[in-house]
Amino acid sequence: VSAGATATALDMRLDRLRVAAEKRGLDAVVATSDASIAYLTGFKALQLERLFAVVARCDGGGALVVPSLEEEAAEAAPTGLDRVVYTPASNGLRELADALGDARAVGVEEDHMNVARARALEELGAHVEPAGEAVMELRARKDAEEVELIRTACGTVADVLERMFSELHPGAVEREVNARVEYRLKEQGATACHTLILFGANGSNPHGKPGDRRLAEGDVVCADASAQIDGYWGDITRCGTVGPPSEWARAAFDVVREAQAAALDAARAGVPAKHVDSAQREVVEAASELGRCLHGAGHAMGVDVHEPPFLVPQTGTPLEEGMVLTIEPGLYQPGVGGIRLEDDVLVTSGEPELLCRLPLELREIPAEERSMENHQKE
Amino acid sequence: VSAGATATALDMRLDRLRVAAEKRGLDAVVATSDASIAYLTGFKALQLERLFAVVARCDGGGALVVPSLEEEAAEAAPTGLDRVVYTPASNGLRELADALGDARAVGVEEDHMNVARARALEELGAHVEPAGEAVMELRARKDAEEVELIRTACGTVADVLERMFSELHPGAVEREVNARVEYRLKEQGATACHTLILFGANGSNPHGKPGDRRLAEGDVVCADASAQIDGYWGDITRCGTVGPPSEWARAAFDVVREAQAAALDAARAGVPAKHVDSAQREVVEAASELGRCLHGAGHAMGVDVHEPPFLVPQTGTPLEEGMVLTIEPGLYQPGVGGIRLEDDVLVTSGEPELLCRLPLELREIPAEERSMENHQKE
Repeated sequence: VSAGATATALDMRLDRLRVAAEKRGLDAVVATSDASIAYLTGFKALQLERLFAVVARCDGGGALVVPSLEEEAAEAAPTGLDRVVYTPASNGLRELADALGDARAVGVEEDHMNVARARALEELGAHVEPAGEAVMELRARKDAEEVELIRTACGTVADVLERMFSELHPGAVEREVNARVEYRLKEQGATACHTLILFGANGSNPHGKPGDRRLAEGDVVCADASAQIDGYWGDITRCGTVGPPSEWARAAFDVVREAQAAALDAARAGVPAKHVDSAQREVVEAASELGRCLHGAGHAMGVDVHEPPFLVPQTGTPLEEGMVLTIEPGLYQPGVGGIRLEDDVLVTSGEPELLCRLPLELREIPAEERSMENHQKE
Repeated sequence: VSAGATATALDMRLDRLRVAAEKRGLDAVVATSDASIAYLTGFKALQLERLFAVVARCDGGGALVVPSLEEEAAEAAPTGLDRVVYTPASNGLRELADALGDARAVGVEEDHMNVARARALEELGAHVEPAGEAVMELRARKDAEEVELIRTACGTVADVLERMFSELHPGAVEREVNARVEYRLKEQGATACHTLILFGANGSNPHGKPGDRRLAEGDVVCADASAQIDGYWGDITRCGTVGPPSEWARAAFDVVREAQAAALDAARAGVPAKHVDSAQREVVEAASELGRCLHGAGHAMGVDVHEPPFLVPQTGTPLEEGMVLTIEPGLYQPGVGGIRLEDDVLVTSGEPELLCRLPLELREIPAEERSMENHQKE
């Protein structure tokens, strides 16, 4: 890992996981998601069909289990854990069971481990129990170094979005604009990224797909971009209009901005996650003539772009100092478009701290076609 | 879906799945992977933490289960299945159980469904059994339209690789070259893509990560690119050298080319998948002074880039007409580099049919730095 936790910091994470496991009456925890493996060991897996796992036994032992193709990469990871390498002739489960030693009550990431592997582990003598919460509680509270990595990722996403808006012009093709933003994020060091930059009515579906549509005068642009850099994500959304904003765009923007401010202000330690959602929801739903409230206020973020707690009406989990949340209210009008504002914020002992510094304005994109000369300068 | 199966073709797939389920003594099958959902319904899911599922009951019923945010997109899908939409207050499992009706023996994609969902379904009365093989056997035999979509994807990947090689020059940064190829694939319509273009010694790890290294005279370039276009993948690898090939590069290329020809020739209906692997392995392992044989001959491909059967020593599954395989032997010399050749091939009743037509040559990249003028024309 070019940046990231030291072996000592990683050892401490494993020890905290062991303590959490013991409290739950478990003998060991097996983490299998890419994000948790990276968080616990600094090893960045390329997980296709083969098994990768981190074993943390309550007796203090453990292992990083990888297929033989990854042996060198696993050796280079900063973790102090033993490495267990399995050959192509194995599916890795026997080796995983061996690394579990005498552990019987084995916690797994139940939202990640598939039922085939869980059953195979049980046949090898483990009693498989859900322990995803124990892993996620650990990941939820970011340390200072993690916060800096998220801040850096946010900075890169902000720069790339800023450049995208400054270059955007009528005639630009939605799919190409998305591809170009992804290219720039990767060029700036992103190892993974998502973009969802939607034009006009296509933006009225928050999960719309970029297509061949060209940007036209009067369009609202809803531009969502996220990137993972040095292991951590940043996730930002900003909007603009081609030419001066319509009455709808201006009014919807003002509502969403007010909703976002309310949700950001609610993001305080001790407050149930659902209160962040209700803070934005009240504002957005009061403006139902402008569009629909189609999703919650956001979610936590870190080594994964979507982490619990999810800021939705069902989540009673209280926020904790050190959580990083992405807060993204939106208003969606079928046939017209979508307006969403998204920023990443650190929950502290006092005021929430914004991790991205991109102005919260509704951008105005010049309505005239640019000359070919300017086109080619891009 | 812009291209893809008609409602009738999709209905036939569901019916064949019902027949396969009945043969296994199941009352229904639940498919949950993005690839299987797209294959069975034409619906392209954006699957994050929320449940998406296709239910095919042996009594002829079934449903496409999606979260409410995806209602419109699910309505627009070409499938004739009922839609079941669950609200944000649900995790979708109760609705999935309702869609299963009286079905008790329920087959799932056991390599995809997580243990949390499998256990929740069991608590709701289902007896969960593995049925991934039934789904994959269906997906394995491509129809003529699927083969054309794969051929088209291969064509795009070939064009983008060809352009990359023609533009490559000493001083190019590995990470940027990868980002640019991804950009072009997306620009050409790829909805997903992977690139693994590695320079020099970095290529000696077949799962190496592109970094800040600049291309230098004498480097071997191992360039692997894949893209999903209109739902289907193409996956190609070609190699080049900066300046004339070293003795090692020439010798390794000749071995890998011979190995690939042998494996391609072995890809015939009725032949066990492992024989395709042994055909390449014998050639590659006989040249151990040139490097290591680190992986199998390849795998099947379709709506997913990695599908069974895997062409490895353990796979006894006989190849069938209609399977599309990617065949990719390689030789890896630590500290020096990697040579791999990869093409996609259709198993037929006779000779295997190559689906990509990119020349199988070791490219020579001019060793001199290009002028800044040429640089900027890119």
